[in-house]
Amino acid sequence: MTMKLHNFFRSSTSTRLRAALNLKGLSYEYIPYVLRRGDTRRPEYLAMNPAGLVPVLERDDGKVLTQSLAIIEWLDETHPEPALLPADAEGRVRVRGLSYMIACEVHPLNNLRVLGQLTEQFGADEAAQKVWFTHWVELTFDALEVQLANDPATGRFCHGDTPCMADLCLYAQVWNNRRFEIDLDRWPTIARIFAALDTIPAFSNAAPPRQPDAA
Amino acid sequence: MTMKLHNFFRSSTSTRLRAALNLKGLSYEYIPYVLRRGDTRRPEYLAMNPAGLVPVLERDDGKVLTQSLAIIEWLDETHPEPALLPADAEGRVRVRGLSYMIACEVHPLNNLRVLGQLTEQFGADEAAQKVWFTHWVELTFDALEVQLANDPATGRFCHGDTPCMADLCLYAQVWNNRRFEIDLDRWPTIARIFAALDTIPAFSNAAPPRQPDAA
Repeated sequence: MTMKLHNFFRSSTSTRLRAALNLKGLSYEYIPYVLRRGDTRRPEYLAMNPAGLVPVLERDDGKVLTQSLAIIEWLDETHPEPALLPADAEGRVRVRGLSYMIACEVHPLNNLRVLGQLTEQFGADEAAQKVWFTHWVELTFDALEVQLANDPATGRFCHGDTPCMADLCLYAQVWNNRRFEIDLDRWPTIARIFAALDTIPAFSNAAPPRQPDAA
Repeated sequence: MTMKLHNFFRSSTSTRLRAALNLKGLSYEYIPYVLRRGDTRRPEYLAMNPAGLVPVLERDDGKVLTQSLAIIEWLDETHPEPALLPADAEGRVRVRGLSYMIACEVHPLNNLRVLGQLTEQFGADEAAQKVWFTHWVELTFDALEVQLANDPATGRFCHGDTPCMADLCLYAQVWNNRRFEIDLDRWPTIARIFAALDTIPAFSNAAPPRQPDAA
């Protein structure tokens, strides 16, 4: 038996979790869903996750876990090596804070269902979606760049020289940004960290284009 | 010396953190900001928190902590009683999952700066803002109601019979919902939990109308 990962190649929360599973050396069965087709709004999916969201991690014992960051914290508690959060409370509050800057301020505003609602409610076309998407990325990435660049706790990665939960969020969001051709020139520290992460197979193998359901 | 809470009475992330500090029995100096006036976009505020967001907890040692859920996890690690997260990994993944349903799927879409951007970019009036706000609340609260109602781990509160991090998020979001007159009739389990939380002074004293800067 193995864990099942219910996910979608382009979903940034799925990318976070794939990289976390890879870092922990945990294998999983990849189960893809096509969000635009409404796969995750079908009754059988909603019976598993009433929120109709990816990713879902279905464990060997059949228990279903939802919300990528909750799953990543669980993975870190149950499979401690390599650690995705620092051992000290000072480090943890920093890494969680950086993670939530992306997970609570950028990603929720820019995922597929939000862009769809902009079109549905306000008639937003692709150009208007891009203005919206870019606005929220710049607002938070500008602040993230300052915080990372000015803090000696930043190392090769977001926190020191080993990848942490914040790196999972950053890596996935940068991939997400590419959908609207947002490059990293404006944020040199974020660009440097992304490039370093992208040399690690656990990350690069989690990237959207490498997944079996990538178009 | 005492901690300083930089916050705004109506901010739901501030409400979460006020209730957490109250539950832990920690006193703090209340420092209010008027978001609509741009108080948190001024240079002196951005020097403290480049993201320009509330709440910020400024500790006795001058260190500044950001992101409400990161601060709440830090409070729970450094002041363990009463616990805001269960002791077991199974309980923690559930409580974090419920918390992030609100913190990553509802609140980020419905805060003041998002409603402002809808007006700025799409000319959304108050009625259109209400449609948008209500859409995201219903989408997640419908799922949250199912998850809470169907799980024997739900007790008097979201997880058993003591308040946890998910209750902080739920309590604050229900207050936030009232800005657009969304009542709880549709979600009996959420309504029951909110009513129970509202009898606890640590929660009711954190509610927006009880704050010194409430209009």
